[in-house]
Amino acid sequence: MAGETTTLTRTRVSAGNRNPRYDILFEPVKIGPVTAPNRFYQVPHASGMTNALPRVRAQFRETKAEGGWGVVCTGACSIHPTSDDSPLPFAKLWDKADIQSHALMTEAVHRHGSLAGVELWHGGASVFNRTSRLAPLSPSGTPWMATHVGFMSNLRPKVMDRADILDMLRWQAEGARKARSAGFDIVYVYAGMGYLPYEFLLPEYNQRTDEYGGSVANRVRLVQQMIEVTKEAVGDTCGVALRISLEELRAKASPHAESEAHEVIDRLKDLPDLFDVKMDSSPTDCAASRFTPEGSHEPVIDFVKKVTSKPVVGVGRFTAPDAMVSQLKRGILDLIGGARPSIADPFLPRKIDEGREDEIRECIGCNICISSWHDSVPVRCTQNPTAGEEWRRGWHPERMQPKRSDDKILVVGGGPAGLECALSLARRGYAVTLADKNREFGGRLRFETKLPGLSTWRRVLDYRLGRLQTMTKVDLFLESDLTTDDILEFGCQHVVTATGSNWTTEIYTSMEVPVGRIDGPNVFTPSDLAAGRLPQGPTVVFDFDNYYMGGVVAEFLAEQGNQVSYVTPAGHASAWTIMTNELPRVHQALSRRGIGVTTLNRVTAFDGEAATLAQLFTAEETKIAARNLVIVGLRRPEDALYHALMERDLAGAGIKSVQRAGDALAPGAIVHAVHSGHRVARELDEPVSEELYKLDAPIVLG
Amino acid sequence: MAGETTTLTRTRVSAGNRNPRYDILFEPVKIGPVTAPNRFYQVPHASGMTNALPRVRAQFRETKAEGGWGVVCTGACSIHPTSDDSPLPFAKLWDKADIQSHALMTEAVHRHGSLAGVELWHGGASVFNRTSRLAPLSPSGTPWMATHVGFMSNLRPKVMDRADILDMLRWQAEGARKARSAGFDIVYVYAGMGYLPYEFLLPEYNQRTDEYGGSVANRVRLVQQMIEVTKEAVGDTCGVALRISLEELRAKASPHAESEAHEVIDRLKDLPDLFDVKMDSSPTDCAASRFTPEGSHEPVIDFVKKVTSKPVVGVGRFTAPDAMVSQLKRGILDLIGGARPSIADPFLPRKIDEGREDEIRECIGCNICISSWHDSVPVRCTQNPTAGEEWRRGWHPERMQPKRSDDKILVVGGGPAGLECALSLARRGYAVTLADKNREFGGRLRFETKLPGLSTWRRVLDYRLGRLQTMTKVDLFLESDLTTDDILEFGCQHVVTATGSNWTTEIYTSMEVPVGRIDGPNVFTPSDLAAGRLPQGPTVVFDFDNYYMGGVVAEFLAEQGNQVSYVTPAGHASAWTIMTNELPRVHQALSRRGIGVTTLNRVTAFDGEAATLAQLFTAEETKIAARNLVIVGLRRPEDALYHALMERDLAGAGIKSVQRAGDALAPGAIVHAVHSGHRVARELDEPVSEELYKLDAPIVLG
Repeated sequence: MAGETTTLTRTRVSAGNRNPRYDILFEPVKIGPVTAPNRFYQVPHASGMTNALPRVRAQFRETKAEGGWGVVCTGACSIHPTSDDSPLPFAKLWDKADIQSHALMTEAVHRHGSLAGVELWHGGASVFNRTSRLAPLSPSGTPWMATHVGFMSNLRPKVMDRADILDMLRWQAEGARKARSAGFDIVYVYAGMGYLPYEFLLPEYNQRTDEYGGSVANRVRLVQQMIEVTKEAVGDTCGVALRISLEELRAKASPHAESEAHEVIDRLKDLPDLFDVKMDSSPTDCAASRFTPEGSHEPVIDFVKKVTSKPVVGVGRFTAPDAMVSQLKRGILDLIGGARPSIADPFLPRKIDEGREDEIRECIGCNICISSWHDSVPVRCTQNPTAGEEWRRGWHPERMQPKRSDDKILVVGGGPAGLECALSLARRGYAVTLADKNREFGGRLRFETKLPGLSTWRRVLDYRLGRLQTMTKVDLFLESDLTTDDILEFGCQHVVTATGSNWTTEIYTSMEVPVGRIDGPNVFTPSDLAAGRLPQGPTVVFDFDNYYMGGVVAEFLAEQGNQVSYVTPAGHASAWTIMTNELPRVHQALSRRGIGVTTLNRVTAFDGEAATLAQLFTAEETKIAARNLVIVGLRRPEDALYHALMERDLAGAGIKSVQRAGDALAPGAIVHAVHSGHRVARELDEPVSEELYKLDAPIVLG
Repeated sequence: MAGETTTLTRTRVSAGNRNPRYDILFEPVKIGPVTAPNRFYQVPHASGMTNALPRVRAQFRETKAEGGWGVVCTGACSIHPTSDDSPLPFAKLWDKADIQSHALMTEAVHRHGSLAGVELWHGGASVFNRTSRLAPLSPSGTPWMATHVGFMSNLRPKVMDRADILDMLRWQAEGARKARSAGFDIVYVYAGMGYLPYEFLLPEYNQRTDEYGGSVANRVRLVQQMIEVTKEAVGDTCGVALRISLEELRAKASPHAESEAHEVIDRLKDLPDLFDVKMDSSPTDCAASRFTPEGSHEPVIDFVKKVTSKPVVGVGRFTAPDAMVSQLKRGILDLIGGARPSIADPFLPRKIDEGREDEIRECIGCNICISSWHDSVPVRCTQNPTAGEEWRRGWHPERMQPKRSDDKILVVGGGPAGLECALSLARRGYAVTLADKNREFGGRLRFETKLPGLSTWRRVLDYRLGRLQTMTKVDLFLESDLTTDDILEFGCQHVVTATGSNWTTEIYTSMEVPVGRIDGPNVFTPSDLAAGRLPQGPTVVFDFDNYYMGGVVAEFLAEQGNQVSYVTPAGHASAWTIMTNELPRVHQALSRRGIGVTTLNRVTAFDGEAATLAQLFTAEETKIAARNLVIVGLRRPEDALYHALMERDLAGAGIKSVQRAGDALAPGAIVHAVHSGHRVARELDEPVSEELYKLDAPIVLG
């Protein structure tokens, strides 16, 4: 990269444009012996960046510190090989190499005046030690019995004896000392999300008859001792935080307090320097916007500040400064926790500080980020294509390298890829024309954001269009269905076709091999629906795309008053949404709308009166009476324009390059389209490199 | 480790004890410019050992060379970041560090006079590039649409244009040159298992209209060119192998030959130096013994040797030398391929060579090995607890470190853990007594190996008992239900309790939280069935263990003439068996026996006349009339003896240690029990180390 423009960045010191209403967000907060410079607190969250990717991790976290987050935490760090979450990508703090690995991150965060935090972590019976091959540990040998294959294990945990508890306390203390050596300012005790200390808190997992089981006083003992040993290890130099899940505990009556959650917090109220409070399971803690609004933790965690005088941090997918201020003023939180919003916009605090709230790239709550963790790969973000690419590809969320020429660029298609590509090219300084054949920009978003639950996804469009409209060298054209002649005559040097994709009626065998298609007058795809061609009457939705579309389309059609059945060869409706924490809610939504769900079946034929189903494994045939069939399966690129252009004399028209971006190249989710559009903009007009991106490697001691 | 005994190992040169019938297995075979020293060929197979574990990988493969495999291949190696199978653990050969990483393995294999092979690999549309974030490549943009969540992706492939095909050929050639630099003797072109070159062969994936699509002659062109560029790159120094899947092709008629498979082989017959022939999908290629016998590939691949004069290698889970000789004599194969049998016994060839066939640790076909890959972790093996532990823990399959004292050891319980523990201790030279309360050894295997399809698993018992019975310092006692008094009076210094586990009637909520149990006169667990307490009449099997037991018990009860229904909260019957390639066959087996399958439901109550079910997500209630309920859920350790012993004056009785092994410590699959028993034997009487095992790290260039 040749250099950096400063178009979109300013200095750290507030330019004086900050709305005084938001001043409170920038007050420092004392956390034991350390002080957070402001109230923006990036809580520990999974990044998929293990110790195998120390530089990727350090720069991912650094970018948030640079963007103004006063505290930046790394994700959960295993303190011992008995806490081995493989194949999920977990960080560790086991040895000297690990200390150096994390030191890259703390140094990077400190460079920007922020505090660095670390969540020391033992997974207990929620991890299965597939790599270490050690027996998982648990208070009473009661395992988690997952219904999702990816989380199932055949190894049940060992009951911890006294020696194991002493080991656990020793590992926590050693972990804390290693964390201090690595340069962390805030060290966590983590009693949440089904992990070991949480299992001690819950009577369902803790049936011990010793002083660690029975009453709340006993069940809280391990957490208490963990905080004590942590304070003893690092308490004069680091803040000690307790992260705790309160959902299940708050639902339990206590003879001593309003709920067991109240009693637990009351018993611990003076111990840690900070309470980081949250929900109990990934689907409630990190809920998708499709089913859950912002601020959903509040009813569970709102009492904590009333019980303790220590500072409290919590999350709520907050992206609007007014909502944050409300949390503070109403006495719910002292620090505004952010995980997803900090991924979507690492510069969120600075933008508020500088009076640029309208430039915030707001999290859409699609949960692609958490799906990355479930996929065991580094974090991806629909809104922020640079997330995880900061070190590897040298992509900064707020800085683009400057243009290399005065070439003019035409982007055809204003969906997620085209919008991102046009915006990013404009940020490089190019003169960009964005043309779309429709009456409004948005591409697939025009239809999809009108589907049940998906309105928040409009932020993908709003952010980009909002920015583009403020830019001077950008021309935006609607209702422009360009022909190849139009483009050749247009006088641009580069063309990017971001013309999207179409859903098809192709189907597959039970062996997952493509096998023809089902066509007919009453056979539809989501593309038909998007074009306003809607089925009327009883309808079967056959979904083997398996992400949100099948379920959402079924809901949409039911909402329109049709009787709808949903059929899938997978084991669940919208099966892949287990990755985005949505799956249980999808099933509930379908049920609520009276939509029957048939799993493990393929639709093999449709005659306008009934769909013929074959059981996936036995081929047993059944029929569902229906007037319409909607196939939600494959998508194919809409790339006719690209291929037509490639047949023409481009050089003669002064055109140096024609490219495809997004679905027009390889149909994917919106996250793929945005990333693709961004990449095209980064690489356009640049020298071609054989190195696609830098490969990170663990720190190895000499 | 202090030293090594030689009890079970001999020199490489045949001791003259070899059965002359097996001499043919030890003939050298020319593979282009290189020569395999014998006919034992460890074909490329997944090990879960990526370039992040170069020393683990090298020693895993070396052990097989040491054990007499004339050719030892590493697993598939990605040749470019567009072939990124994450989160599945794939090896790569992209840069100089990768060359050095693999050189560790080739040097290790060469130390034993064996050839080293490498399967260069491009996954095409079967991989989803979750880490590289590049568009997957495919002949015509037709993706694999998996029904299993773990294999689903939202990104569809790009259609390869001419430049992509040239890239692909360049990557193959560069990969071949890197392979040669790394010291490999055999370099593969890999056209199998749904990967890119295979997709060109199959018309379902290849709808191209250029010279790479249409006729077989066109569809085979890419493979042909890949072989050519590979030979050009390394053909004078390395053998060039073609690995090809033939199942789908053999089912297709050809106007020019008996089938498209015949035509493809005919067109390629003179090109590669070796044909490595196989099936098309993991469930048929690597089929579990529960449903598929040895030698199952033969009907698909038997024709290849008739078409080509080049040597042919194939697999069949062969462990018996007579079966191997038959393959050669009948003209099916020239080289006996081994994957699973080479994991279960790396020393299989040497044992045959030395006339020790009875010492072969035969693969049981449980497919825990392939499940490790699906779990994204290094390979595990039920029969061979040292697999994957060669470097990390210093465990050799045929060598144990010698005893440290003349202590006597009592092992209580002769199931998988106890047998393995007793045998391994005896191999160390200790005097061992193995006592079991039953009339025969085997523990859980006594019951389980009588269940439908599981008889091959008896090899776990047979191998260990067979070896133990030849050993002089081992005492075996049956019908010995030892009390603590018996043990204290016995006069041993160490006690290992391997007393197994019991299935319980505990159940869980839909949130996967434990919630009481269902008990009653007609409520059973697999432990009841194992004890001979069998339900009669209509029976509901409620399975949330999700591995084989639920499905197998349902089959067993149906076989006994009962009407059986199977209920699970998971999306599939025996859902976890997708990991062991069994799942489709489980569904088919249940259907064949007339067993109705209800997924996504929990049994919440049972009154002796009906089981009450609640839908997992909606709680909708239904009932299934049944006289009996079998709950296949949780297991708890049978550890009463251990705890009773711990209460006693052990020192007074001269007992230095009492331990638990296997299910008595942490209930698991048989693979966990054997590993646990082995670990106890390795570590007993040894100094305690804080380092549980060595941590490997990638090669990083200075």
